[in-house]
Amino acid sequence: MTDLSAPPFSSRHIGPSESEQQRMLEAVGFESVGDLVAVAVPEAIRAKDRLQLPPAASEAEAIAELRELASRNRALTSMIGLGYYDTVTPAVIRRNLLENPGWYTAYTPYQPEISQGRLEALLNFQTVVSDLTGLDVAGASLLDEATAAAEAMTLAHRAGRSKSDVFVVDADTLPQTKAVLATRAEPLGITLVEHDLDGELPDCFGVLVQYPGASGRLRDFRGVAARAHEAGALVVAAADLLALTLVAAPGELGADIAIGSSQRFGVSFGFGGPHAAYMSVREGLQRQMPGRLVGVSVDVDGDPAYRLALQTREQHIRREKATSNICTAQVLLAVIAGMYAVYHGPEGLRRIALRVHRHAVALATGLREAGLEVVHGEFFDTVLVRVPGRAADVVAAAAERGVNLWQAGDDHVSIACDEKTGAAELAKVWAAFGVEREEADLSADALPDGLLRESDYLTHPVFHSHRSETAMLRYLRRLQDKDIALDRSMIPLGSCTMKLNATTEMEPITWPEFAGVHPYAPEAQTEGYRELIGTLEGWLAEVTGYDAVSIQPNAGSQGEFAGLLAIRAYHQANGDTGRDVCLIPSSAHGTNAASAVMAGMRVVVVACDTDGNIDLADLDAKIAKHRERLAAIMVTYPSTHGVYEESITEVCAKVHEAGGQVYVDGANLNALVGLAKPGEFGADVSHLNLHKTFCIPHGGGGPGVGPVAVRGHLAAYLPGHPLRDGSAVGPVSAAPYGSAGILPISWAYVRMMGAEGLTAATEQAILSANYLARRLAPHFPVLYTGRGGLVAHECIVDLRQITKETGVTVDDVAKRLIDYGFHAPTMSFPVAGTLMIEPTESEDLDELDRFVDAMIAIRGEIAKVASGDYDKTDNPLRNAPHTAESVTADEWAHPYSRTEAAYPLTSLREGKYWVPVRRIDQAYGDRNLVCSCPPLEAYED
Amino acid sequence: MTDLSAPPFSSRHIGPSESEQQRMLEAVGFESVGDLVAVAVPEAIRAKDRLQLPPAASEAEAIAELRELASRNRALTSMIGLGYYDTVTPAVIRRNLLENPGWYTAYTPYQPEISQGRLEALLNFQTVVSDLTGLDVAGASLLDEATAAAEAMTLAHRAGRSKSDVFVVDADTLPQTKAVLATRAEPLGITLVEHDLDGELPDCFGVLVQYPGASGRLRDFRGVAARAHEAGALVVAAADLLALTLVAAPGELGADIAIGSSQRFGVSFGFGGPHAAYMSVREGLQRQMPGRLVGVSVDVDGDPAYRLALQTREQHIRREKATSNICTAQVLLAVIAGMYAVYHGPEGLRRIALRVHRHAVALATGLREAGLEVVHGEFFDTVLVRVPGRAADVVAAAAERGVNLWQAGDDHVSIACDEKTGAAELAKVWAAFGVEREEADLSADALPDGLLRESDYLTHPVFHSHRSETAMLRYLRRLQDKDIALDRSMIPLGSCTMKLNATTEMEPITWPEFAGVHPYAPEAQTEGYRELIGTLEGWLAEVTGYDAVSIQPNAGSQGEFAGLLAIRAYHQANGDTGRDVCLIPSSAHGTNAASAVMAGMRVVVVACDTDGNIDLADLDAKIAKHRERLAAIMVTYPSTHGVYEESITEVCAKVHEAGGQVYVDGANLNALVGLAKPGEFGADVSHLNLHKTFCIPHGGGGPGVGPVAVRGHLAAYLPGHPLRDGSAVGPVSAAPYGSAGILPISWAYVRMMGAEGLTAATEQAILSANYLARRLAPHFPVLYTGRGGLVAHECIVDLRQITKETGVTVDDVAKRLIDYGFHAPTMSFPVAGTLMIEPTESEDLDELDRFVDAMIAIRGEIAKVASGDYDKTDNPLRNAPHTAESVTADEWAHPYSRTEAAYPLTSLREGKYWVPVRRIDQAYGDRNLVCSCPPLEAYED
Repeated sequence: MTDLSAPPFSSRHIGPSESEQQRMLEAVGFESVGDLVAVAVPEAIRAKDRLQLPPAASEAEAIAELRELASRNRALTSMIGLGYYDTVTPAVIRRNLLENPGWYTAYTPYQPEISQGRLEALLNFQTVVSDLTGLDVAGASLLDEATAAAEAMTLAHRAGRSKSDVFVVDADTLPQTKAVLATRAEPLGITLVEHDLDGELPDCFGVLVQYPGASGRLRDFRGVAARAHEAGALVVAAADLLALTLVAAPGELGADIAIGSSQRFGVSFGFGGPHAAYMSVREGLQRQMPGRLVGVSVDVDGDPAYRLALQTREQHIRREKATSNICTAQVLLAVIAGMYAVYHGPEGLRRIALRVHRHAVALATGLREAGLEVVHGEFFDTVLVRVPGRAADVVAAAAERGVNLWQAGDDHVSIACDEKTGAAELAKVWAAFGVEREEADLSADALPDGLLRESDYLTHPVFHSHRSETAMLRYLRRLQDKDIALDRSMIPLGSCTMKLNATTEMEPITWPEFAGVHPYAPEAQTEGYRELIGTLEGWLAEVTGYDAVSIQPNAGSQGEFAGLLAIRAYHQANGDTGRDVCLIPSSAHGTNAASAVMAGMRVVVVACDTDGNIDLADLDAKIAKHRERLAAIMVTYPSTHGVYEESITEVCAKVHEAGGQVYVDGANLNALVGLAKPGEFGADVSHLNLHKTFCIPHGGGGPGVGPVAVRGHLAAYLPGHPLRDGSAVGPVSAAPYGSAGILPISWAYVRMMGAEGLTAATEQAILSANYLARRLAPHFPVLYTGRGGLVAHECIVDLRQITKETGVTVDDVAKRLIDYGFHAPTMSFPVAGTLMIEPTESEDLDELDRFVDAMIAIRGEIAKVASGDYDKTDNPLRNAPHTAESVTADEWAHPYSRTEAAYPLTSLREGKYWVPVRRIDQAYGDRNLVCSCPPLEAYED
Repeated sequence: MTDLSAPPFSSRHIGPSESEQQRMLEAVGFESVGDLVAVAVPEAIRAKDRLQLPPAASEAEAIAELRELASRNRALTSMIGLGYYDTVTPAVIRRNLLENPGWYTAYTPYQPEISQGRLEALLNFQTVVSDLTGLDVAGASLLDEATAAAEAMTLAHRAGRSKSDVFVVDADTLPQTKAVLATRAEPLGITLVEHDLDGELPDCFGVLVQYPGASGRLRDFRGVAARAHEAGALVVAAADLLALTLVAAPGELGADIAIGSSQRFGVSFGFGGPHAAYMSVREGLQRQMPGRLVGVSVDVDGDPAYRLALQTREQHIRREKATSNICTAQVLLAVIAGMYAVYHGPEGLRRIALRVHRHAVALATGLREAGLEVVHGEFFDTVLVRVPGRAADVVAAAAERGVNLWQAGDDHVSIACDEKTGAAELAKVWAAFGVEREEADLSADALPDGLLRESDYLTHPVFHSHRSETAMLRYLRRLQDKDIALDRSMIPLGSCTMKLNATTEMEPITWPEFAGVHPYAPEAQTEGYRELIGTLEGWLAEVTGYDAVSIQPNAGSQGEFAGLLAIRAYHQANGDTGRDVCLIPSSAHGTNAASAVMAGMRVVVVACDTDGNIDLADLDAKIAKHRERLAAIMVTYPSTHGVYEESITEVCAKVHEAGGQVYVDGANLNALVGLAKPGEFGADVSHLNLHKTFCIPHGGGGPGVGPVAVRGHLAAYLPGHPLRDGSAVGPVSAAPYGSAGILPISWAYVRMMGAEGLTAATEQAILSANYLARRLAPHFPVLYTGRGGLVAHECIVDLRQITKETGVTVDDVAKRLIDYGFHAPTMSFPVAGTLMIEPTESEDLDELDRFVDAMIAIRGEIAKVASGDYDKTDNPLRNAPHTAESVTADEWAHPYSRTEAAYPLTSLREGKYWVPVRRIDQAYGDRNLVCSCPPLEAYED
């Protein structure tokens, strides 16, 4: 009988059809996927049982279940504030950016030539931040306000003149920021001192001022800044971007660093995230800044072009000497915030801010006139009311009217106004206080006289020329068209797992019932979210073989940090306070080392052998040397070389024997799901990257989610709730559930794949990598293979000999791939001079073959360079990528033809991608740093 | 005090800012828009009062109100059937096609070079229809199954050998089809005879067979076809495409024509529409087919290219001799249906069909085994059950369980299975009949033996190579990128009003509460829809000055027909049965004449004077000549020349005086809204184009909505309900509210613009047209102006003298505009050798200037042809458009440069649109007609 059931979702997620899979198996030399896996994956690590997950749901069933979960959230009017404020996402931005795979499936712009669209968008964001904060250089986003504050703290620690280890924190700082600062300060030996900032400051290396304060209070911190500077300390302002359209910029008041959230610039609550935090610094500190920074440079024709600047600061280059472990940013959200500013312009933002402020003033006036005590006389959007003993009652009365307020202890209620606040909301709040009032008088201000903003902002034309929806739509399309994302072609980035981000996974995240929930909304209103999160944590535990999972870390880097904190706390609880050595193989992701340093550990590097595996002899030596101080080893599995190391169980045993804990970096989990579980084969803790294995899109460089998974003995040391005391380890993110708003994506993926689908995906990922390796091997040496000459889910092609012989570099090949319509594989990681290719299971055979064809054609071009048929320096590789403008130029002086430049394969004639700039001069941009929108003259011919 | 309210939606809808508007006014020579309008719009037609509409809502408010309306619809499981079946729209198609402005804002593919993406998509649709129906040529969609049946009837009437005026209709035809056939037959003198098709057929010119029947019955109609053919009649099969994957094709059974709906191929109910109907015909009938037909031709390089074929059949060319008045098709929905087939492939469609069928069989078996009487033994998806006297109770019991069934009289219940039907639904249905049963046995068939499908279908590779979501996503992106839609640039098509289709207007149409409602769902479940429709009809009446509006007509052509039927019925009711002359000015839209013929009228053409206005002397003469038989005059206002004719009130008076009615075609209503009301200045009836003035996107050539608006004396003659008797005039569409599913778009537009916004939009549209006219006038003669040398909302530039002097044609300029990144204006309508430009209010000044710059640059190129600087035939105009491939060719033999070809303006270097094919040979394609996917060899070099 014919199978009448619909093909499972997995058949849509997995690229190759059954017959394609068969052809690939033949090429690799196996009869079945099972046979391949049996050889490729060491028996010792193979999972004993199949995954225990509910049977795969269809797309329609998953959506129905998500709708049911969504219906158990209640998105009340939120006036809770505390760093999260309701906002209107312009529909044109939601549909054409947040809901558009052309934007959300893009990768981090490390290949700048095919990323000019999102780089321009990020430069807009940086300009917004730099202009509004009045500081010279702004970065391309951080994870949340609390972690940004922690990054600012460590920046001040590194960069300041002071020898002190004390960091002074404004007592009126957001509570979650205080909590995350505490988590981050302790391992680094930094002492936090809370202070009201009146009068004398203690000796310190830095001071953080919340502007306006968590209580709503708005004050001039010029005096504090002056005192701090006198004492050699740096000043960090945690500032509200919307308020800054009305009040003096932090830079004007003396701040050296500004941080904060851009959430209220058009990004929904999402029950805590993702939102883009920002950081800006004064001139002189930019080389100390954590995270990505977009800068303007030029291409080989001298035309302006964008790219990431000062990358030598970052963890993937500086490793344990990095300024921060941050890797993923919140690009998609930063882009939205930037576009919100583009669409509203300075006058629009100012109007919104004034409206928010005047509503807050009207609210306060109404309460005062009714005899209630409003605590602060000067504020922006938040009104703190003293109601001795009645706070809980007032909050309850407001909730009954559909409005959430914030109860600040027994005696105070805090009310934050936002872009959506109108007379109707004020009336409900008044009523909750027992005040009958309808009319809101919007004529009065409550801003301190000396703080009124006088400086201009957003004067660049980009903030003045997209006011109509039509103009905005076209601007978004124009930028999108400059970039390569997964909606155009395969992005074969090794270690990045650029798989399908299915529409059904993505649709729920913009439903109001998921998007509209404040992270601190009462539990009774978030039942659906909490069930979804609990279920997802359980599934992730099952998949990884661990006992407990926390999805709080809102990036892989935060997951690593949380995992190491758990190990550290565990040792300390056992009295092993001296265990601070973290072994890290030389092939590790740079983030590992940076995270270890953040967790207060010393990094000791373990060598790798010529096959790329951990050198067991060196491991033994290092363990012997550091035995008493051994805290942990951090390994990636399969290794960063894309190989299932046979020795992994042995490595785990050795470390355990010496009293250390084993951290397995989950970056390569896509090679394990359904086949092997780190929690079973010897590891104690892992972080996962939901934006790799579990389908959260890369968003052009974020958001990511990096859950931490642990065995039972570490469960007590998972991150705590940011607003609740009593956990053994503090929170690592501002929101209790991190970037909760995008968790429906991974939930839907697991729900629709089921155990069989997930396992089949892993098997296909392995098969596809081996197929590529097999097809490329005759043309390029394939570096590092495991048993049977097989790789895991990615393969490395080695260009070092080719470079030596021909002068053609990895860079040349990467840029030439752009002419063939592809994003380059990972360059020179983990081995310089190589390309690491990860096809993932989602690419079908046609696309894999198209990529192979391109690589083979490029190999032919290299051969022509070698043979002298192509000039050593003036050849299609060295001159790649070729813009349409360059290939249509009236003069063509190159010794190769235009056709060879533009259409080296006939198949490119269908839907050719035209790169918008030629090869970009990285050094020029770092020498001439420009990190906000350049004046239009820069674009003149 | 600063205005704190958010800028109204109208400031996003209207392109130019206040300062831009001021600059435009200066260029046109007026101080204010009011001054301009006072001169441009004749006092005689000016509306007395401002529009009475609710104050403009913000986008957020409109969405909230729509959510409230949506919440008052209940989308129960529908097993009603009757031509509408539930279906799963693949999410990847919904997001990247239906919710993507790159697809939905495109225009009809009259400029084929910039429409290759949607033309390929339509060719897929045609291939699906042609393959499944087993007929040679399929068109690119009709409006709904009922109107398609009517079109087939008239086709048979024209094309058949028979002299009879009788059309035989299968008694088992869908009731709405019968009703629409009746409406359409009567004015044409066709007699409908219902017949069970057993035994002898009456003398007739055609027979319509429903296959399967409305009752579910599936039967072999070979015998009927043979008898019909013997009698010289043509056979029309109204067939279900999904059923055709299992049973013999209509063409194989003897049908000459097949029609039906493609709704169940992934298109939601939408409370009745829009959905794409299809028609296919056997070889020999294609030149008689109504509507658009996509065919394969070649470009000047001989490469395959798509374009509309056999356009000489169509109303815009043949006018009253046209085969049909159909203009707008249902392109967006046809594209979805085609993509659904691409994504599922033949094996997927067959599996879906078999699953539907087996559920129907299981349902019938369960009922029979419980002792119930199932009427038919052979069926596809619909089970008819006889329950004497209990039908209403069963239907009610099912509704209580969340399932809608269809009550066919007192004694029968009809249940249709669909793609979503599963065991749970069957159990509910059984329970409604009082049968306790859970298990569905899916092993048995109930298809007649002799009817099993044996022929292949969808063998073309396109139906076999996009099975993964990734592959589908990229296919959609690749096609989209070939086309110019409003998300790239202005589409300045005169008479088409290509304005903003705002995201907020578009979002609600894919909400399940709007998308998931069956057109014949019980009234209690459609409260929200009906309120929305009633409100919208009221607003449209207010805007046009009429007394009653019906939104039933699902295209402008249907609105025209309905309006003329109302006039006809009114005359008949008055005993004026002889009034059948319809006066139509020579400048009218071709549709007018075709509609008049369909409504049983004779067309008498009234001449226009040299200014393009109605020649009053000729009007007098024609009225005098036809006084006794004068039924109506159809005029467009402002005229199709884009001029406010001063004489309109006089024209109306003259016709009224002679006993005729005045029909004002609402095509140009965008020049009137808020300023003048046809219902006030003398007209009796109008149709509107919601897809022009009221923001429904053009969808690449549909859907459209064409409400008919009438004064009180005609209100009784508006279209009737397709399933209810007793109306004076029958229905013109299959669904009672036509394409109800997209009405939220127009509702939102009016709701967010309010009276002031709508009026401001009109004023800006007039200003923008006059700005363009003023700026272009020094370079091109501007044809036809009204008072003060002003145009209305569009302007005509005259190229006739230029063509005479230089040989450069309108076609050359249109194709050259593609090189400049623009869709051409309307070509040679209403005057051959001219371009009609309508900017609409949504284009900002930058875009208008960019267009003017392009036109001026083209004028410079023309001057070079005139001066001999450019070759007469080998110049950038004649060779336009230039593909990237042609401009990067290794050999460049043209006497002008590559830069002149590709980048005639420096501004084109940013985001250049590259056309995918060169100029297409129209005649070649008509001589070598290929209307389904060509074999891949056709694409080989």
